[in-house]
Amino acid sequence: MAARPIRLIQYGLGPIGAATAALIRRRNGAELVGAIDIDPEKVGRDVGEILGTAPSGIEVVDRLAALPAEARPDVAIHTTASYFPAFASQIEELLDAGLDIVSSSEELSFPWIANPEQARTLDERAKERGRTVLGTGVNPGFIMDALPLTLTALCQETTRIEVRRSIDASLRRGPFQRKIGAGMTVADFEQRMVEGRMGHVGLPESMHMLFRGLGHEMTASASEVRPLVAEAEIVTDHVKVAPGEVRGLEQVLRGSSTGLEIELRFIASLGADEDGDRILIDGVPSLDVSLSGTNGDLATAAILLNAVPLVVEAAPGLTTMATLPIVHAW
Amino acid sequence: MAARPIRLIQYGLGPIGAATAALIRRRNGAELVGAIDIDPEKVGRDVGEILGTAPSGIEVVDRLAALPAEARPDVAIHTTASYFPAFASQIEELLDAGLDIVSSSEELSFPWIANPEQARTLDERAKERGRTVLGTGVNPGFIMDALPLTLTALCQETTRIEVRRSIDASLRRGPFQRKIGAGMTVADFEQRMVEGRMGHVGLPESMHMLFRGLGHEMTASASEVRPLVAEAEIVTDHVKVAPGEVRGLEQVLRGSSTGLEIELRFIASLGADEDGDRILIDGVPSLDVSLSGTNGDLATAAILLNAVPLVVEAAPGLTTMATLPIVHAW
Repeated sequence: MAARPIRLIQYGLGPIGAATAALIRRRNGAELVGAIDIDPEKVGRDVGEILGTAPSGIEVVDRLAALPAEARPDVAIHTTASYFPAFASQIEELLDAGLDIVSSSEELSFPWIANPEQARTLDERAKERGRTVLGTGVNPGFIMDALPLTLTALCQETTRIEVRRSIDASLRRGPFQRKIGAGMTVADFEQRMVEGRMGHVGLPESMHMLFRGLGHEMTASASEVRPLVAEAEIVTDHVKVAPGEVRGLEQVLRGSSTGLEIELRFIASLGADEDGDRILIDGVPSLDVSLSGTNGDLATAAILLNAVPLVVEAAPGLTTMATLPIVHAW
Repeated sequence: MAARPIRLIQYGLGPIGAATAALIRRRNGAELVGAIDIDPEKVGRDVGEILGTAPSGIEVVDRLAALPAEARPDVAIHTTASYFPAFASQIEELLDAGLDIVSSSEELSFPWIANPEQARTLDERAKERGRTVLGTGVNPGFIMDALPLTLTALCQETTRIEVRRSIDASLRRGPFQRKIGAGMTVADFEQRMVEGRMGHVGLPESMHMLFRGLGHEMTASASEVRPLVAEAEIVTDHVKVAPGEVRGLEQVLRGSSTGLEIELRFIASLGADEDGDRILIDGVPSLDVSLSGTNGDLATAAILLNAVPLVVEAAPGLTTMATLPIVHAW
């Protein structure tokens, strides 16, 4: 870790980006030196105003090129979009500017199988520039991939991994509640699912990280998603759900290879019965691990910033949580 | 990871060493090429005989120099002794022979604070030889150190870590049951504790890995140990405990620094009420994690062998679980 503070820019000031920027400002050894967002309501304002904290002297700009010369950032924390077509050029631009990058983009968390060409292109660009790119987050990035992989350290044999993540979305931010379909009719939900515009992004990336990390090639997979329907009216700060409308969803991805089965189950709804994660590993020995407290933007902002010192030290290229040393509180 | 199998020797054929040797023989990509033990009852016998498996063609020898020339090992798995005075010369000898080393020696798991001079000496020797040394295991090495450290990836702030490991020793091997005092009188237990010859080894190492990993200097610590006494007779395959005699123990180590408290609690007894681990992290967010299935020699053998490919790839020197990439099933 550098003796001088690591100079960071926050690229994207949505709820996660804002939480991360606020955390950067509190963290010893880190300095927020710039903030980028395309939202005209944010551009030109002091970032402290947007975070609801003390003035920062940092004015939000609408693009990387508009950062003041004195910013001289080392690292970008990038929190804009989930899919390669939307974020790839942003990552390239950050690399060309000589920055290491920690991104919350779900497709970046383990892109080698689902988006191999895009992954190779970014990897080459990062190596040319001598910089490192990591996609991480709570999920994908930890609960359904890096953590189960870590737990298999205790196993002589691993034949099945099941991860079940249940989220009570009632207290989550509006975009999250809408992303899980809360307040939609079932017909709308199913239409938007067909269009691929809904639900949790990242189950395939988590699954690929597990299979590849354990030295397996996935040979078959199947996914399903179903809406969870409200029996009574549910009202949150962000949505209103009538009886019979959607209050959330359940997504399952199953994969198999010779000798290993993996099932990843993501459940998020308003008024959920459960809130927590369970990781079951069938093997020698078998393990049963339960977690609570992992739900929320606090943890996402934490893991993005906690990864920074390791990304600064890492070899150039596109890396993943499976190959970095242990990411931990900084 | 090398394309050809990694050639391993097993140094120490006690219960853990034997379990590890058996695992090496089953693992694709690994080859057992030698076995060392000082026990005259083992020396000269085929290692398969000692493991209760098929003949291996490998004869147990009593020292490193007695390995046949064709062994040409890459890595030693070392499972002999807990304390530096007993194991340091063995590690040096293995380094001088040009081997990477994964050891179960508890004091080696994070020796930088508790045994700084010995750690420096081994680190220098390993660097001179261009080889890597890792001390690991389930505990120390994972449950009370590397895993809690990994979990703090999700935390913006961490103010307290509590790990509680409860082991039902009824089904464990004899040396383990004796190590926790089972079958002793309370007076004997206390006498042997004073002499430092009993109990779990490794709580300080786990604690130092956590403080150091989180960037803290521990400024105060306190430990306590108490015998757990049998109310009724307990008989296992290895010991017999009369009412009023010791059936196990509870050890606690507490440490603090400015802003961080850590409590590590190890409970092992015959007829325990609990068998599992709990990790509580107070922070932003707070986490509550429970594990079961981590108790036993299966997991210890697993983590020793699972660490091998990473140790082969690691930079020379004395490394720890806090700085290696994720160890996972191989």
